[in-house]
Amino acid sequence: SIDGQRLWDSLMAMAEIGPTEHGGSCRLALTPEDAAGRRLLLDWCESLGCTWRVDRVGNLFIRRAGQRDDLEPVAMGSHLDTQPKGGRFDGILGVLAGLEVFRTLADQGIVTERPLVLVVWTNEEGSRFAPAMVASGTYAGAFSVESTLAREDRDGVTFGEALEACGYAGESPVGEPRLDSFFELHIEQGPVLEEEGETIGVVTGVQGMRWFDVTLAGQSAHAGPTPMRYRRDALAAAARLIDRLQAHALGDESGDTKVTCGCLDIDSASRNVVPGDVKLTIDLRHVVENELDALQTYFEGLLSEVGETCGVTVSQERIWASPVVEFAPECVAAVERGAREQGLKYRRMMSGAGHDAVYVSRVAPTAMIFVPCRDGISHNEAEYATPEDCAAGTQVLCDAILERANR
Amino acid sequence: SIDGQRLWDSLMAMAEIGPTEHGGSCRLALTPEDAAGRRLLLDWCESLGCTWRVDRVGNLFIRRAGQRDDLEPVAMGSHLDTQPKGGRFDGILGVLAGLEVFRTLADQGIVTERPLVLVVWTNEEGSRFAPAMVASGTYAGAFSVESTLAREDRDGVTFGEALEACGYAGESPVGEPRLDSFFELHIEQGPVLEEEGETIGVVTGVQGMRWFDVTLAGQSAHAGPTPMRYRRDALAAAARLIDRLQAHALGDESGDTKVTCGCLDIDSASRNVVPGDVKLTIDLRHVVENELDALQTYFEGLLSEVGETCGVTVSQERIWASPVVEFAPECVAAVERGAREQGLKYRRMMSGAGHDAVYVSRVAPTAMIFVPCRDGISHNEAEYATPEDCAAGTQVLCDAILERANR
Ligand SMILES: NC(=O)NCCC(=O)O
Ligand SMILES: NC(=O)NCCC(=O)O
Repeated sequence: SIDGQRLWDSLMAMAEIGPTEHGGSCRLALTPEDAAGRRLLLDWCESLGCTWRVDRVGNLFIRRAGQRDDLEPVAMGSHLDTQPKGGRFDGILGVLAGLEVFRTLADQGIVTERPLVLVVWTNEEGSRFAPAMVASGTYAGAFSVESTLAREDRDGVTFGEALEACGYAGESPVGEPRLDSFFELHIEQGPVLEEEGETIGVVTGVQGMRWFDVTLAGQSAHAGPTPMRYRRDALAAAARLIDRLQAHALGDESGDTKVTCGCLDIDSASRNVVPGDVKLTIDLRHVVENELDALQTYFEGLLSEVGETCGVTVSQERIWASPVVEFAPECVAAVERGAREQGLKYRRMMSGAGHDAVYVSRVAPTAMIFVPCRDGISHNEAEYATPEDCAAGTQVLCDAILERANR
Repeated sequence: SIDGQRLWDSLMAMAEIGPTEHGGSCRLALTPEDAAGRRLLLDWCESLGCTWRVDRVGNLFIRRAGQRDDLEPVAMGSHLDTQPKGGRFDGILGVLAGLEVFRTLADQGIVTERPLVLVVWTNEEGSRFAPAMVASGTYAGAFSVESTLAREDRDGVTFGEALEACGYAGESPVGEPRLDSFFELHIEQGPVLEEEGETIGVVTGVQGMRWFDVTLAGQSAHAGPTPMRYRRDALAAAARLIDRLQAHALGDESGDTKVTCGCLDIDSASRNVVPGDVKLTIDLRHVVENELDALQTYFEGLLSEVGETCGVTVSQERIWASPVVEFAPECVAAVERGAREQGLKYRRMMSGAGHDAVYVSRVAPTAMIFVPCRDGISHNEAEYATPEDCAAGTQVLCDAILERANR
């Protein structure tokens, strides 16, 4: 059985790379901090005798040999990048749990039949380079290598340039190695498990999500002499859009409709200038694909209506759509067995967040394991999961991996 | 009579300092561009034999001697600083009209009884250092010299540091010279004169204005798994605040209530993060002081209500209040006479924008002259006033100045 204290120590050691003011982490994708995190992990894994390779979009595959190295490996992993003010667990737990599985097997002298691979997927958060999960998506064929390398961050730095600069531009072809199966342990990032007093979420799938870039073009004007009725205030239009979208989502009794405006920028903002140009982002989510279609239709209609009411020219571009995902029944069952056999309280549930497992599930049987996080908070420096829950999730991961690798 | 073409040429020459992409100007207060604009003006005035001095907050007083240099000077002027994407007329017209008056008098060999002073007030726009009109306010005793010098721009540079850096930190005591009277020509920055087909606004006063810094503190969280009902979304709260304030102002049939949110910043914004912390600015205006009180009360109530509804902690600081101003009847009358005698269509009106004349009116009899600007647009690169209207306003200024200086 795995060593919960050792796992915790590795989590806390990783959190020392890119620490933030209030106890979180900032390791934006492909920054020196991200590279330092990868290096620490590689040091640990190399000392266990693992080998590794990096593909052309920076995905890191760390391999522990099996008895039958001709068979496809069983894989586990997640990501090491964080939000600008992110937590110490989101992604990191799934990676360091994999390390803990390797260490446990090493301690006990176990060599699995199939080889094992621990994967660190690049730029999962989507915070530096949109969209999220872009490198696992590229691995799974959802995006071309060229388009991924050409994606730009807000400063105009491309993914490819950042990859070179941080030293993780690999040679290995994207899409290799093929995986027998993939398991990702992650914090829930929502409140359900904590509220229900359960330790394990057996994740059956992931809600669909769509990202939009919205532009509102009115006319900047002086805040003093410009009569209200003459204004074409792009921020007033944005405010109306956000407020009405919020009301729409809150009006869904099921709670399955989710809308978020995460970024909003006013061009040449000044206190006494009516904003002329505003850009903002919209994130729409739903667990049912055709409900998500309906939500998008509502959003598009609302945007036009707001544009007309406020005398503002509106446009939007859907920059990403990740359909509703269902994980592989045999992998989900393996996770469920693991939880049951450890005597842990668990529930089957859908994930609200996108994860690398979303794309990997297109090319390999996949499942996920959730553990609770305090107050359901993540993408926040205060993100926290208890050492006990981290250890429980890692044990379930270990059991599922062993079952798959020795079947 | 003044030379309209020469005036226009000087306006266009000034616009070549800090030009913007779409034909406007960017000369933020106390930047190298601001200093270059001042230097150009001084070159022109020195060649007319004028002398000048700069006070400790950078206000520039350019003097043309009179027959009776023991008498207080009659003054005119405005500002040379602009918004980030400002126009070529806002402020600049009032300064270059003063230059044109000097040139006209020089051409005709006229020496007025009282000396004349052309004033360039520092940082009128309030865009780099809040509040607006801070240096004319300091001249008039509304702010202490020390507090003005300590004001910071968004990068933390103080007014005093910027003044030193741009070479206009003067020695002359603030509040000197005392002025017999002050006249400011300005574009209207609103649509009324154009709509009514009038050339001159005889400005009787200025609406009251109040500036607020608002902070909304919720909790950042993941956009995916966080149920709508659990969110404490600071941007959703801001959107509600802005939308309700807009509706309130639009609901005032008189059109006298004005509200603007000009700046809004999300802390550590990310597409898939529910915004935890938002800062924004609010600008409230009204032509009647107790209506402005009522507007502030409404805003404060709304802010609390929105905070409660959205689960967000709200706070606000009123960083500036400029009461409703009435100009000196004798100066207003002099402007009106000038307009009438030139046979120009005019109306008496209140100013919607703050101007240096607001503060100067506390210490010297003051009035203002407005000319139309196209579509009422200013604080915008597209700001435009015709050469004819600029010339007409300058002629009225010249006549009013001569009347006062020779009375
Ligand atoms: N787990 C996670 O934060 N993924 C980022 C993609 C998303 O926004 O759901
Ligand atoms: N005229 C002008 O733009 N003044 C700035 C102060 C204000 O916001 O009214």
